[in-house]
Amino acid sequence: MTAGGATPKTVAVLSGGVGGAKLVLGMSREISAERLLVVANTADDFKHLGFHISPDIDTLIYTLANLANNEHGWGRANESWSFMEALEVLGGETWFNLGDGDLAMHVERTRRLTAGESLTDVTAALADALGIGVKILPMTDDRVTTIVETTTGPLMFQHYFVRERCEPEVRGFRFDGIQDARPNPGFIDALRSGRIGAVIIAPSNPFVSVDPILDLPGIRAALNNMNGPVIAVSPIVKGSAIKGPAAKMMRELGIRANVSAVAQHYRGLVDIIVIDEADRDFEEQIRALGIDVLVTNTVMRTLEDRRNLARFCLGAI
Amino acid sequence: MTAGGATPKTVAVLSGGVGGAKLVLGMSREISAERLLVVANTADDFKHLGFHISPDIDTLIYTLANLANNEHGWGRANESWSFMEALEVLGGETWFNLGDGDLAMHVERTRRLTAGESLTDVTAALADALGIGVKILPMTDDRVTTIVETTTGPLMFQHYFVRERCEPEVRGFRFDGIQDARPNPGFIDALRSGRIGAVIIAPSNPFVSVDPILDLPGIRAALNNMNGPVIAVSPIVKGSAIKGPAAKMMRELGIRANVSAVAQHYRGLVDIIVIDEADRDFEEQIRALGIDVLVTNTVMRTLEDRRNLARFCLGAI
Repeated sequence: MTAGGATPKTVAVLSGGVGGAKLVLGMSREISAERLLVVANTADDFKHLGFHISPDIDTLIYTLANLANNEHGWGRANESWSFMEALEVLGGETWFNLGDGDLAMHVERTRRLTAGESLTDVTAALADALGIGVKILPMTDDRVTTIVETTTGPLMFQHYFVRERCEPEVRGFRFDGIQDARPNPGFIDALRSGRIGAVIIAPSNPFVSVDPILDLPGIRAALNNMNGPVIAVSPIVKGSAIKGPAAKMMRELGIRANVSAVAQHYRGLVDIIVIDEADRDFEEQIRALGIDVLVTNTVMRTLEDRRNLARFCLGAI
Repeated sequence: MTAGGATPKTVAVLSGGVGGAKLVLGMSREISAERLLVVANTADDFKHLGFHISPDIDTLIYTLANLANNEHGWGRANESWSFMEALEVLGGETWFNLGDGDLAMHVERTRRLTAGESLTDVTAALADALGIGVKILPMTDDRVTTIVETTTGPLMFQHYFVRERCEPEVRGFRFDGIQDARPNPGFIDALRSGRIGAVIIAPSNPFVSVDPILDLPGIRAALNNMNGPVIAVSPIVKGSAIKGPAAKMMRELGIRANVSAVAQHYRGLVDIIVIDEADRDFEEQIRALGIDVLVTNTVMRTLEDRRNLARFCLGAI
């Protein structure tokens, strides 16, 4: 893209599950895999039935491998469910759905981790096996666990999200283990050395998908020192989250569920926020926070939408 | 069966996989579940893909629950294979077939064992969930591992049996861990206290399915002291094993593959051997070893065959 032979810098995307994966898919069609680095939230990883499950990494991998079940927003398309049916008969825990094909991912990841491989290496191997060229890095190889503080007590994220269907009222969040977690060197070293030219915060849940990445030791400082923009795409459009409980969480936390509150949340960190045309009225309010605003269609229904939003973000760099 | 109110004693069946399971199924239709105790070989249990797999217990459970795939001799009928297909794409180990429904058994067993339950308790819970009234006891809750010594080196049993399709030439067997393994108290205590009135050695492989049970510390002595018969059903008919590598093993060990050699193998332990009509010619030869011989049809093709053989064995008691 640049003239004169200078190597174009890497664009890093900080991503949770569905919304992030859509933008990453769009990105992967707009720039070469070598220029794209995806940093995935792993704070909602958990141990279940003996498996290490990495929901956001899986959604990214399945989306990029064109295997994702777009209707559910998790798991694989054309999935069979014999395992869950048999497990139910055996009296096993069935609140977290694991499709038969999806199970292979969890079994192989767990096997490799148990054999001593890092989550980074395992993720690379699994992505490679599915023909994905884009580099997906877990935010850390250490264990960080999102705990949702609710009016009925603390819940591990998947318990809150899946088992309790986001029904408990949220009071706050904590990320157990984060103070001792080492950010993925593939990300933070690239940030510090200037190899990353821009960071895009995907339209993922700010509280439970993006904050765990930002709160890792050293990440905020490295982002502030980076010679390039930090651009957030708002996950809130017209007061609602495209997917997931972000808007409900905001209301329960006493925050207005709108793009202005998203901008406020990322204040001091992001240079630009990308908002949907439907939220154009918030433009001035956000600019008053010292954050630049760009307006486009941020709702990604089709692959074309994803590519358009990706191209728009890249243009903003 | 006995007059005058005396409680009929328990019949214990020592069993490996397929052949044993067939006889146990027949037994379960001929006497009440309370009178039947199945002691299952666990020396071919192994860890695979992070799961604790108990092939003989599974075959017994699936057979008694009417879920068994009778064509394969392992796993479930009407099985789907999405997991294995997805695992292959991910580059995982696929030499040991695990059906989607079958996986539930391994996942739930492993989860419970990891939580600290004994294999005995786990087996009881799984059998109970599938509505099986017959008590199936693992021969021990400790780890015993059959190693097949072959001309190309030692192999774990499942590696020999499944991965190498029984092709390597056998030189002998060892059961790692057996000297420190504690026989299942539910079996050995019942034997010693006289609650067991007869022991039937199922038509399972003498070397790798029955010997591990017999070789557990104290079992042979308890069998010898038992006030009741030990009856073996020959797994060899007309010089062939009905299923599995028993005959091939005998030839490679320099033993004639016939019922007489089976009787020789169990000499000093069994009182009666049940042989097939096709092997009637061996009767005198076996009697010369000091073992009683009973002749019937031992090939179990139909449920009726299984019930007939079970009834025949019970009659011999």
